[in-house]
Amino acid sequence: MVPTLEGSPDPLFPDFPRGPLHAYRARASFSWKELSLFLEGEDMLRYKKSIFSALESDPLFARPHGAHLSLEKYRELNFLRCRRIFEYDFLSAEDMFRSPLKVLMFSNCLGMYDWSLATKYFLHTMVFGSAIYNSGSERHFEYIQKVFSMEIFGCFALTEVSHGSNTKAIRTTAHYDPATEEFIIHSPDFEAAKFWVGNMGKTATHAVVFAQLYVPGGQCHGLHPFVVQIRDPKTLLPMPGVMVGDMGKKLGQNGLDNGFAMFHQVRIPRQNLLNRNGDVTPDGTYLSPFKDVRERLGASLGSLSLGRVSIIGMSIVNLQLAVSIALRFSATRRQFGPTQEEEIPVLEYQLQQWRLLPYLAAAYALYHFSKSLFLDLVEQQQGLLGGDRSARQAELGHEIHALASAGKPLASWTAQQGIQECREACGGHGYLAMNRLGVLRDDNDPNCTYEGDNNVLLLQTSNYLLGLLARRFQGGARLQSPLRTVDFLEAYPDILGQRFTGSSFADCLDSAVPLAAYKWLVCYLLRESYQKLIQEKRSGSNDFEARNNCQVYYCRSLALAFMELTVVQRFHEHTHQPGVPPSLRAVLGRLSALYALWSLSRHTAVLYQAERRCSCPGRRDRSS
Amino acid sequence: MVPTLEGSPDPLFPDFPRGPLHAYRARASFSWKELSLFLEGEDMLRYKKSIFSALESDPLFARPHGAHLSLEKYRELNFLRCRRIFEYDFLSAEDMFRSPLKVLMFSNCLGMYDWSLATKYFLHTMVFGSAIYNSGSERHFEYIQKVFSMEIFGCFALTEVSHGSNTKAIRTTAHYDPATEEFIIHSPDFEAAKFWVGNMGKTATHAVVFAQLYVPGGQCHGLHPFVVQIRDPKTLLPMPGVMVGDMGKKLGQNGLDNGFAMFHQVRIPRQNLLNRNGDVTPDGTYLSPFKDVRERLGASLGSLSLGRVSIIGMSIVNLQLAVSIALRFSATRRQFGPTQEEEIPVLEYQLQQWRLLPYLAAAYALYHFSKSLFLDLVEQQQGLLGGDRSARQAELGHEIHALASAGKPLASWTAQQGIQECREACGGHGYLAMNRLGVLRDDNDPNCTYEGDNNVLLLQTSNYLLGLLARRFQGGARLQSPLRTVDFLEAYPDILGQRFTGSSFADCLDSAVPLAAYKWLVCYLLRESYQKLIQEKRSGSNDFEARNNCQVYYCRSLALAFMELTVVQRFHEHTHQPGVPPSLRAVLGRLSALYALWSLSRHTAVLYQAERRCSCPGRRDRSS
Repeated sequence: MVPTLEGSPDPLFPDFPRGPLHAYRARASFSWKELSLFLEGEDMLRYKKSIFSALESDPLFARPHGAHLSLEKYRELNFLRCRRIFEYDFLSAEDMFRSPLKVLMFSNCLGMYDWSLATKYFLHTMVFGSAIYNSGSERHFEYIQKVFSMEIFGCFALTEVSHGSNTKAIRTTAHYDPATEEFIIHSPDFEAAKFWVGNMGKTATHAVVFAQLYVPGGQCHGLHPFVVQIRDPKTLLPMPGVMVGDMGKKLGQNGLDNGFAMFHQVRIPRQNLLNRNGDVTPDGTYLSPFKDVRERLGASLGSLSLGRVSIIGMSIVNLQLAVSIALRFSATRRQFGPTQEEEIPVLEYQLQQWRLLPYLAAAYALYHFSKSLFLDLVEQQQGLLGGDRSARQAELGHEIHALASAGKPLASWTAQQGIQECREACGGHGYLAMNRLGVLRDDNDPNCTYEGDNNVLLLQTSNYLLGLLARRFQGGARLQSPLRTVDFLEAYPDILGQRFTGSSFADCLDSAVPLAAYKWLVCYLLRESYQKLIQEKRSGSNDFEARNNCQVYYCRSLALAFMELTVVQRFHEHTHQPGVPPSLRAVLGRLSALYALWSLSRHTAVLYQAERRCSCPGRRDRSS
Repeated sequence: MVPTLEGSPDPLFPDFPRGPLHAYRARASFSWKELSLFLEGEDMLRYKKSIFSALESDPLFARPHGAHLSLEKYRELNFLRCRRIFEYDFLSAEDMFRSPLKVLMFSNCLGMYDWSLATKYFLHTMVFGSAIYNSGSERHFEYIQKVFSMEIFGCFALTEVSHGSNTKAIRTTAHYDPATEEFIIHSPDFEAAKFWVGNMGKTATHAVVFAQLYVPGGQCHGLHPFVVQIRDPKTLLPMPGVMVGDMGKKLGQNGLDNGFAMFHQVRIPRQNLLNRNGDVTPDGTYLSPFKDVRERLGASLGSLSLGRVSIIGMSIVNLQLAVSIALRFSATRRQFGPTQEEEIPVLEYQLQQWRLLPYLAAAYALYHFSKSLFLDLVEQQQGLLGGDRSARQAELGHEIHALASAGKPLASWTAQQGIQECREACGGHGYLAMNRLGVLRDDNDPNCTYEGDNNVLLLQTSNYLLGLLARRFQGGARLQSPLRTVDFLEAYPDILGQRFTGSSFADCLDSAVPLAAYKWLVCYLLRESYQKLIQEKRSGSNDFEARNNCQVYYCRSLALAFMELTVVQRFHEHTHQPGVPPSLRAVLGRLSALYALWSLSRHTAVLYQAERRCSCPGRRDRSS
């Protein structure tokens, strides 16, 4: 493959202009063109290139040089750019179904340009649009058409001033009035105001509003989504009874207009209930298509996973950009040297390598994970839309939920810490706004918070693992899952009996060695967390307290280690598969080993502790 | 003391208005008024109150509510505020000498309001002013008067585009011309442009410029400071030959106008050389008052330490503010609970406590350290100005340099990580600009970089410790220092033979236990670093390479652990002294133990490794 690439006039792979980085590039042990092709595939490279080329040559996307946009101007410009993206029609519906990965790549490309633009576009199309598509029925499809023609502009209103993570406590109400066949949407007080809703601040005309559904007689059937018109599409003036506004400046993503809204007895037609998972008849009777709670939950988890899987992708893009900036700077910035006369690039310092190269490896490993999990989610969503009600489909929903719930924390934190390290590694220059590390950090930051606070989300993953173990103990069900991420746990007593397999430094350079250690670590943390939970309950804690008191050092660590293991496992398999071009095996193997060893090294203290505990045989028996 | 405080109408201690935090405050085991008095002293409390009261009632200091200031407007407003601070005359020269701690408190108060203001003010008065006072002689004192009358406005120009950390490689030149008795200040190329200079962007009229001093014949005598007028004080137009401008938007501190300057053969009078540490006679002969290099170095380190000690104080203020915001929010924000009906404050969750409370303890421990190190520095500076040329004075300079060089990294990183944790712990609300956590993070960030990159600075401290050890081995000099921070090392072989002294959970709640473990850790890391350095040299590395290859896992860890130990030691002593009111002993003891244990816990992996190595007796002998 190499001979046709090198020196090729293909615009997909233009040679880099000769500059200060040339000396380093010339020393590379591999062809970057070949690596790109292997990791992305030609189709995706061409697709990304087409998007970048369009944005590069469109003056609307020129970055105002040196100017400092006001909040209002930035939000206006961002809306104009969003509209232009529709005109380009980068992603047809056909494309989306034939090559779903293009959705992720499209988001990545827009995000590389500016996350305010990507979030504005995707909140309207994918979040608002998908909520209607996935939660609604045929009667709602007219909205979808209007989304893509931009006749309406949408937002997704779940979070309130006082409640975000605890969605059950959401307080906006929707009372059904059979006399007029309408729902009455109402915010009982300030704390129930919808809050943080992206696109709501300035531009949204319609919102999917989550509210507690009450039928006549006063029975509440829980949270349901409703389509509520909040502004006149022509004037953008609020609809009667709707108080809506912009939340003002945020730490980042300031091109996006996050907003708040309060509803004062706003009446909407009965048909505006998005009724896939629950409906109300004209006379006020509540109907649900689900009988089994776990099945219903599995189905609804899919849409939660979509947001989290998207955020994994967003985080990795930020990490990729930051690492590229910092490594290029480090290769050209010279400071100190063996003699007064000769200064060396700061990249040559062991300390600088130690700070930056693990994040380079993390960017590769997590990027692969991001794509593979996205494709898993596509499979799950296709099953759901195809009406698959199998047990495997439900289990797949739970497994992806567990992976997305810990994958988002791992990816967003890795990016957060990586960008900070990159900022500092560039010294003063990293603090200059035009060098972009600040924007990356600020735009990445909400990835740690929205679609579920990272620390709270980790609980979802540890609950999943502990639940599997409990079912194993109680009913004897095998520890296995559709994507096989938990299958190794079936052998957990044996794994805990194994010793570290590396006997030399060279051994550890094969990621299979840290991979085996990770399996041991996850088995250990799973057992310890399970024991701790039982112990808490035995000592009189109720379920709520017991779970809370098992987070620190136990369930939180378990969820993160399990997630890292999954990322390491997938990247190890990807970089060691037979299809890897021989000339890339060495560099990919090193990236895989570096990410695995670096991640594992943060658990060193636990590994030492575990070794001590495990060397006291019989301290605990398996089922106690 | 308590009875006179509670219910007192003294405006120093107004009771908090009854609000959502009341329930928590009522449960406190101590009186916050008593704690304030003990930690700050009545004089300092009154002094701080007087500053806050003045700013609170002055409309110039009102924060423009909801408005988004442009860069230009913010810089203009900041300059007007800076001028107003002069009018208030919060700190007389007499005050400064009688109660030097007021300088730190004054900086803290301004910084609590806005670091852009504090840095603008102090760069002019303390950095520019002190550089002239400390490096100049009587002939320069006219500048000092003009600093305080604001006839001139100053900046400190050391860093260049291509060199910051490596000050020896600074490339601006000052050639002496005996024909006209002038120095010719010149920037040979773009990379030699002065860069990042605070106040230089818009407002400075004069700069202390560091340049390589050349005498006739071409000999270079190294870096020296010169007073260079860069703008006309009336028009603010650049002086002939000076190209000066603003660097544009930064990640934070945008009220401060950081600038760049290039000099094209700018002639200044011979007298503008700040000549305390080196002078040139009219005919071009170079003179230096120092004979001993170590003595000269010790003297000049003092002014470097001033910047770093100030940054420690700045970082801690940021941490204090962030922790206060996050803890107050956590006490009032309710999410989830044991039942659907009852939600509990997020502060009640073990996880939230684990995330935030160590930073609360760190804020107290580091605040005490910041004040005590500031007073040590005052002592050293007074000795210097008093003409003390004793060996102790020189050693004191080196010790404070070591403490400031690792104290700045520890304080700025603790603040950086603490603010990020606080931001995330406040969820979405933490991401709203008005809640200030973003500003704190952005304004704190340069603390990790300026006055020496944190990672590079740590090398200064490890070099200090390794140098002491080498002198011990070579000449038998006792391991001791004026502030006694290193004296325990004299017993290091014995300390390494000791075992962990805590035998129960309760034992560890006395900070004496982690303190002892810290001494062990530092001795271990010192020995390991020393061995590693020798090993690197033996295997053929030159001095430069050997030092570089000892940073990761060795010297870097050594410097940080030594610094943490010093902070723990000082806070332990402060909280366990006989003068602590009995009613405060419990809470102060808990803060001391929490900070010590939390810091130490980050070294758990090293402690385990060390235990293994040390349990192989005779592996290494002491002097090898």
